[in-house]
Amino acid sequence: MTRIVVDAMGSDNYPTPDVEGAIMAAREFGVEIILVGDESKIKSVLAGQNTQGLQIRTVNAPEMLTMEDKGEQLAFKARHRDSQNSMAVGIDLVKKGEADAFVTMGNTGAAWLTALFRLGRIRGVDKPAIAPIFPTASGSCVVLDIGANPDCEPNNLLQFGIMGSLYAEKVLGIKNPKVGLISNGEEEGKGNELVRATLPLLKNSGLNFYGNVEGKEVIGGKVDVAVTDGFTGNVMLKSSEAVGKLIVDNIRETIKNGNILTKIGGLLVKPALGSIRKLLDPSEQGAAILLGVNGLVLIGHGRSDAVAVKSAVRVAENAVKANVLDAMRNAIEKSLKK
Amino acid sequence: MTRIVVDAMGSDNYPTPDVEGAIMAAREFGVEIILVGDESKIKSVLAGQNTQGLQIRTVNAPEMLTMEDKGEQLAFKARHRDSQNSMAVGIDLVKKGEADAFVTMGNTGAAWLTALFRLGRIRGVDKPAIAPIFPTASGSCVVLDIGANPDCEPNNLLQFGIMGSLYAEKVLGIKNPKVGLISNGEEEGKGNELVRATLPLLKNSGLNFYGNVEGKEVIGGKVDVAVTDGFTGNVMLKSSEAVGKLIVDNIRETIKNGNILTKIGGLLVKPALGSIRKLLDPSEQGAAILLGVNGLVLIGHGRSDAVAVKSAVRVAENAVKANVLDAMRNAIEKSLKK
Repeated sequence: MTRIVVDAMGSDNYPTPDVEGAIMAAREFGVEIILVGDESKIKSVLAGQNTQGLQIRTVNAPEMLTMEDKGEQLAFKARHRDSQNSMAVGIDLVKKGEADAFVTMGNTGAAWLTALFRLGRIRGVDKPAIAPIFPTASGSCVVLDIGANPDCEPNNLLQFGIMGSLYAEKVLGIKNPKVGLISNGEEEGKGNELVRATLPLLKNSGLNFYGNVEGKEVIGGKVDVAVTDGFTGNVMLKSSEAVGKLIVDNIRETIKNGNILTKIGGLLVKPALGSIRKLLDPSEQGAAILLGVNGLVLIGHGRSDAVAVKSAVRVAENAVKANVLDAMRNAIEKSLKK
Repeated sequence: MTRIVVDAMGSDNYPTPDVEGAIMAAREFGVEIILVGDESKIKSVLAGQNTQGLQIRTVNAPEMLTMEDKGEQLAFKARHRDSQNSMAVGIDLVKKGEADAFVTMGNTGAAWLTALFRLGRIRGVDKPAIAPIFPTASGSCVVLDIGANPDCEPNNLLQFGIMGSLYAEKVLGIKNPKVGLISNGEEEGKGNELVRATLPLLKNSGLNFYGNVEGKEVIGGKVDVAVTDGFTGNVMLKSSEAVGKLIVDNIRETIKNGNILTKIGGLLVKPALGSIRKLLDPSEQGAAILLGVNGLVLIGHGRSDAVAVKSAVRVAENAVKANVLDAMRNAIEKSLKK
């Protein structure tokens, strides 16, 4: 039975969505759930739920990391052997082999740093990356890195390509995934120094390299994996979210301030508009995985509700079953021998 | 009377929107228009229009630059003294002092290169930038650079800040514009190497520096000017456009495939949805200006219709009247003396 640790203190509205989503996952996917966090808080949510016959247990972690944890203080809490925050305790369960994966809706940077310190990197990986799944016109695209590594070398981007491709294949089930390199134009020769130096590496990597891509190719579904440095990826992700929000707010406002016919129309299309929420909400797409650390760690959006937590657990379960970690170790090993 | 050269061969549907928009501008703003391009084509559009009493003349330029013009061949056409394409001929009119500004809906890269070769840079400016106006929740934001300079040094970004601030003040009429530095997080210390090295320069520049900004601050209207390298700016611009298009297509599709009530609702909200087109269409916001070249050059979107061409001419006229170029020369001069 796959054993997934769920951080009960992760989401903005913790612990309710986290605990409820974990219960849903235990029921629907038949996984074992280990809830880590403030046990009294977890138990008060569990008390109101029917968990009969489900494999759910709790591990106490009285502290938690929040968006306020930054810099050296965060590094200390992420690193210290005796840290009692839910991320450190949860990730240690994975490290000790007591669980197969760790899932959190908490602070991405904190999860990344805690995983990096406690699990270490896969041998040969210089920079582990944060890899969310972007919604596209035709499905989804793994984009990496989106923030862990603001400064990258060409070789880092090559490794992102190798890891992202493997992940798309093993977890999203895409055969021979198409890998694109995010640039300011599709033609070869476009790009900044980093992109221009990375292109030949990806071309000769044996990956199914598509070439340079722009936002419209990523979102249009032309590639399954999009490689970029963490600075560009982060700016891209956050701008996309902001534009989406601006448009949706604008539509709402226009309908609200419209005449009576517009308002009636607004009521009628409301259920349909709900479907675009999916496009704007990364948590609907599962969760971002940390690629390159020695263990499976998945990070969902802070805004996640129980359903989003459940789908993050499903992504984690898929990654465990597909044996992503061993495949990743082998692929990196192989690439180093080239 | 302000004299504006309009490239009649610029837009995707040239020359009709270009010529019609120019006529509208001549009528509404009382500017003199010089239409440059294939004279026979221009005249056949002019023939169908009432131009009585308007100051409109044509200058023949039998060739044109298209999206196909790239690399060395483009550089040759942009640079050669005897080039007969509409951009070269039009920009030469500005250079010779026969016109005050050049407006085109054509290939951005081609316009940039032609302007750079033919007009040269303002003394002290290392890298001229392309500066479009982004729509925001509360108005607009000048973003630069969005593609001319994929690799930048901190000093280039400082100059972008100086030029962008001046432009926002003189042309958009914003007093003491707030300048932000695009980064992967708001806190000081966030950013890639370039951003971290640029922050202190902007802080000590005398500009109204807001600090690091993410997409949500730019689009949320927290700053009037957002500074970034041309690679990041381009990725940001194109991703934003792509996300906007995906959402709108998705809404349309959902309504089209919905039940009868959804369809009726769709018809009722349709006029209201039109207002978001403005958010997705950069041409509605006027045009991007080239900042740092020795002359006023404005570039609108290829998809522009006549109204968009007209508003690009208005932006050009505002820039002429505000004497942006002299102000820019003085500001750069002053910054060099620091």
